[in-house]
Amino acid sequence: MSEEVRDTVFIGKKPLMAYVTSALIQLATLPSVHIKARGLSIGRAVDVAQIISRKTDEGYSVGKILIGSESLESQDGKIRNVSTIEIEIRKQESSGQEA
Amino acid sequence: MSEEVRDTVFIGKKPLMAYVTSALIQLATLPSVHIKARGLSIGRAVDVAQIISRKTDEGYSVGKILIGSESLESQDGKIRNVSTIEIEIRKQESSGQEA
Repeated sequence: MSEEVRDTVFIGKKPLMAYVTSALIQLATLPSVHIKARGLSIGRAVDVAQIISRKTDEGYSVGKILIGSESLESQDGKIRNVSTIEIEIRKQESSGQEA
Repeated sequence: MSEEVRDTVFIGKKPLMAYVTSALIQLATLPSVHIKARGLSIGRAVDVAQIISRKTDEGYSVGKILIGSESLESQDGKIRNVSTIEIEIRKQESSGQEA
């Protein structure tokens, strides 16, 4: 399981910058990462993607964005649909950094 | 101004189904609509898009998704960045409906 999570950052309740840092660390060794969130965290996933692409305009940009929904069983036993988002962040073609 | 809003649904504080209905009414006469939201409403924009594409699997699908950010001046005079999302919903190629 932990192998599959390698190129993914799941957005939860931590401060935004924790996820920004986590994504940047992964991007140091990978060509792209996927920022995933569901429900109320979706807006925060967009915030994280925007912070990374704005603060690092030399290096990273927003790639493919997917939305979907998942069925979850809530505590009262009912099935509820929750929206999800997945935002790809990728390294831009080397813009002279490796010169 | 009202002309430009023609193919756009802005997500605010109303119940979700109000925006679903509004989008479906626009889609009756237009090939696509754009669902826009910012900040905390972003998750709700995804909900609206998912409801339309799931409940009407004959007819509509999610198209291009854009994210961005806007600078707003808050009440204390500070400039704050707010994330935004724009989700395109479009009519699918006629799948026998016009037969």
